[in-house]
Amino acid sequence: MNFIAIQGEKGSYSEIAAKHYFGEKIKISASYSFNEVFDKVKNRKVNFGLIPIENSIYGSILDCFDLLQKNSIKIVGEINLQISHYLLSNKKYKLTQIKNIYSHPQALAQCSFLLNSLKKIKIIPSYDTAGAAKNLQSDNKEYAAVVASKEAAKIYGLKIIKPNIQNNKKNFTRFLVIANKQQTTKIKNPKSSISIELKSIPGALFKALSVFALRNIDLVKIESRPLPEKPFQYLFYIDFIGNLKDKNIKLALKHLKEISISIKIFGTYEFGKFICN
Amino acid sequence: MNFIAIQGEKGSYSEIAAKHYFGEKIKISASYSFNEVFDKVKNRKVNFGLIPIENSIYGSILDCFDLLQKNSIKIVGEINLQISHYLLSNKKYKLTQIKNIYSHPQALAQCSFLLNSLKKIKIIPSYDTAGAAKNLQSDNKEYAAVVASKEAAKIYGLKIIKPNIQNNKKNFTRFLVIANKQQTTKIKNPKSSISIELKSIPGALFKALSVFALRNIDLVKIESRPLPEKPFQYLFYIDFIGNLKDKNIKLALKHLKEISISIKIFGTYEFGKFICN
Repeated sequence: MNFIAIQGEKGSYSEIAAKHYFGEKIKISASYSFNEVFDKVKNRKVNFGLIPIENSIYGSILDCFDLLQKNSIKIVGEINLQISHYLLSNKKYKLTQIKNIYSHPQALAQCSFLLNSLKKIKIIPSYDTAGAAKNLQSDNKEYAAVVASKEAAKIYGLKIIKPNIQNNKKNFTRFLVIANKQQTTKIKNPKSSISIELKSIPGALFKALSVFALRNIDLVKIESRPLPEKPFQYLFYIDFIGNLKDKNIKLALKHLKEISISIKIFGTYEFGKFICN
Repeated sequence: MNFIAIQGEKGSYSEIAAKHYFGEKIKISASYSFNEVFDKVKNRKVNFGLIPIENSIYGSILDCFDLLQKNSIKIVGEINLQISHYLLSNKKYKLTQIKNIYSHPQALAQCSFLLNSLKKIKIIPSYDTAGAAKNLQSDNKEYAAVVASKEAAKIYGLKIIKPNIQNNKKNFTRFLVIANKQQTTKIKNPKSSISIELKSIPGALFKALSVFALRNIDLVKIESRPLPEKPFQYLFYIDFIGNLKDKNIKLALKHLKEISISIKIFGTYEFGKFICN
């Protein structure tokens, strides 16, 4: 049985994504931080880790990008999960009776239209949506609610006060599956990820992208992160279509080396499915 | 006298940056959120706003990028401030006596080496470094400290427990000066900022960057942000060297229009000075 490290508790969106990716029969290793997930993967305490990397509305999860660069791990899979938030409580309260609402800051931000319309409520950030649900159940708080998944409602025996409370229904989070070793099986519909630190030359980024464009390799995403020792210079994360074993991609990376200080290869994996609910 | 909206209180890094940019004789309009700063600028309640846009270690302040896109304002200036954090308290406590430490989450993260080495302390996030200092003084809390600027120590009469507690000394924050109207005076050492939504065509970003590269216009920064209505498609913010009035830049933008769905022009301003302390 696969043992999967996630940030958060049972009933978190990461667990839901993990079950869609690996199937129902998995064991979850709940973790307090993304750092803990990476440590468990690196030290082979688990078979895989699953981390959110990007939300379609709020953008990249920068901590996870930085942890990819810091750690020596591989990306072996991807999955896109539609996020539907529910307002949950211990009793079937009316919306107007709720006084305190707990959840992860990202989830709270994603439901700001509803939450801002409620008067006299107190918003209290917590480390995880499902963790907030778990605490609500165990502390048996009155007139309190959490923003979490409907799976969290089932697991912690909470009542649904209001379903689908997110501002935008087109709300997807992209998760990466990380492992200690590169995947070796054949990959249909492949996508690859790298990071590069470019030399300080004029038009460096243009030249880096030309390496791909000249070989008709399509880019999927580019993300820049700061280089702490070089103020206002950047590391670029690039996702592109194709397999690192393909000849044109091998040549592209060889060409890229000419203009780079360093290149880090995260691996090739299958394009993530979109899971709607 | 210039009236400047900033997020945070007197003694915040934004106020220090504003005084370096405009001189000591300014009036500060303290605001709880970046949104409030933009509103005050838009509604001409102030002459200018000053917002942090990027930290050299932690990266872009994504909320501010999103607010630039949402609002119809211009960028008219820039300044880079070295960030030196101080641990401050009401009394000259020893480090080991401190029980609670308050500050903005970014400031707390920037001092994680020291804070993680302290045992039995509680970290409490607040909305602003200087706001935390102000509350510490007014509530006269015992065995509590804040992470804030040495200017905050002066303003709120706090004692320095430990100076320069940031992890990395090369810690700069870049601030933008925003206004209701484009600057009309002559600009030495000009830099311009735009955002673009590109058409869905192969190699779109490469083609966009070629517009600049073909005219020897140097890019300074590129930042991608999600388009909420188009999951996993992006808006690009681009800073480049030159004045929007320059002929080659006018031609570049005309060329860019051919491959863009929309272009937003934030303005031309002088490259920010680096203020070290």
